[in-house]
Amino acid sequence: MRTHIVYAHPSDTSLNASLRDETTRHLESLGHTVTVSDLYAMKWKATADYDDFGAAQSENFIAAAGEAYESGSQSDDITEEQRKLLAVDNLILQFPLWWFSMPAIMKGWVDRVFTNGFGYGTTRTWPRYGNGMLEGKRAMIAVTTGAGQPHLSDRGVNGSIEDLLFPINHGILFYAGMHVLPAFVVNGAVQLDEDGYAAAIEALRGRLDTLAETEPIAYRKQNGRDYDENVRLKPGLERPGSAGFGLHIA
Amino acid sequence: MRTHIVYAHPSDTSLNASLRDETTRHLESLGHTVTVSDLYAMKWKATADYDDFGAAQSENFIAAAGEAYESGSQSDDITEEQRKLLAVDNLILQFPLWWFSMPAIMKGWVDRVFTNGFGYGTTRTWPRYGNGMLEGKRAMIAVTTGAGQPHLSDRGVNGSIEDLLFPINHGILFYAGMHVLPAFVVNGAVQLDEDGYAAAIEALRGRLDTLAETEPIAYRKQNGRDYDENVRLKPGLERPGSAGFGLHIA
Repeated sequence: MRTHIVYAHPSDTSLNASLRDETTRHLESLGHTVTVSDLYAMKWKATADYDDFGAAQSENFIAAAGEAYESGSQSDDITEEQRKLLAVDNLILQFPLWWFSMPAIMKGWVDRVFTNGFGYGTTRTWPRYGNGMLEGKRAMIAVTTGAGQPHLSDRGVNGSIEDLLFPINHGILFYAGMHVLPAFVVNGAVQLDEDGYAAAIEALRGRLDTLAETEPIAYRKQNGRDYDENVRLKPGLERPGSAGFGLHIA
Repeated sequence: MRTHIVYAHPSDTSLNASLRDETTRHLESLGHTVTVSDLYAMKWKATADYDDFGAAQSENFIAAAGEAYESGSQSDDITEEQRKLLAVDNLILQFPLWWFSMPAIMKGWVDRVFTNGFGYGTTRTWPRYGNGMLEGKRAMIAVTTGAGQPHLSDRGVNGSIEDLLFPINHGILFYAGMHVLPAFVVNGAVQLDEDGYAAAIEALRGRLDTLAETEPIAYRKQNGRDYDENVRLKPGLERPGSAGFGLHIA
């Protein structure tokens, strides 16, 4: 198995750095080939702009992105990340939850790498949500949170971690065709003591051991039978009591 | 009234640029003092890192951020944005929806400006969700989407635009104490024709005319009576049929 880790944290002595190292070590001990994009270490360019598109001529930004992808004139760092994604079986996105989402540098990795023609298309027939360029690969978010678990639980003031990660899990990873595993979450990262750290490492290893067998989140495929011609969920298909993002889980 | 617009789009001939200009013009015609942070034009640094903290000594990233804020050693561009926010009555965040969130450059504006001591604190007593440094100011997202309205409706495959914007509206703007108005949304931005554009401009003007009177989203204050000691919503308080993020609207 081949696994690519995209990692974003500014400190190399952080909990995140330890988790990244443990992930790499443990996967290698299981026989995986592991590659890591350490975005801070790479000084990854976070901002998507026309400089990414080389000789592309279109004035419209999305069109220019598509032109650059098609013609091969996009920036080399983007092409390299796309190549890494296409080469692996599994993708792990590891980051601290900042303002209930990814750090900007990782959002910029998505904005730039999942470009028009690779991550999405502009036609009505572009295959997405269960189909796409990364179809069949497995993806997992590994995230640390400052907040304690109750604050991110079903009724917690922050919203549930599942809902907060939905725009990434469903809107990016599943959109591009990946099977998305439930996130690996370490809560209360700021106050984590030695026992908490040991428990987190053990839980992480368990998740890595079962990466290939864990049941993905049962997001509904757009090209299945669940959505109408306006890609709205057909009446009556929702699980009892589900609403909001939960509608899109079968 | 004083209104600050934070704007992020890479093209100055885009729909977003037109909406930004119309917002500025219209608010000025209403007597507002308008300031704009045009993040692409400013070449805003998107990535939060230790370079932001000057002479701060802490190894822990969050602690270093707090130390830099307290001691005044944080980067000048951060201080300047905080000053702009404190000076106004209204904040408008204007951006295209990229991967169901803000472009990375705007996420980086949040990551860096809403720093430890300004946007959040690390103590249990930090006032948040209805209280905070920006308490009482009004905020509104103005967003364009490539997707058509049904795709972003209550049962649409992308999730509803209200839920997708919740991590920003609730998790950033309301977190810092602001009254959050329903977002101004222009759907189907890629295919917008002349009539659609005229309708969008008229709708935008209507929203700007009523900026001071529009009822904010009824997010529940953390320091009210709705949450228990683990900041979980108390049983029985949810509106009938609500679930997920909807629980946090009274």
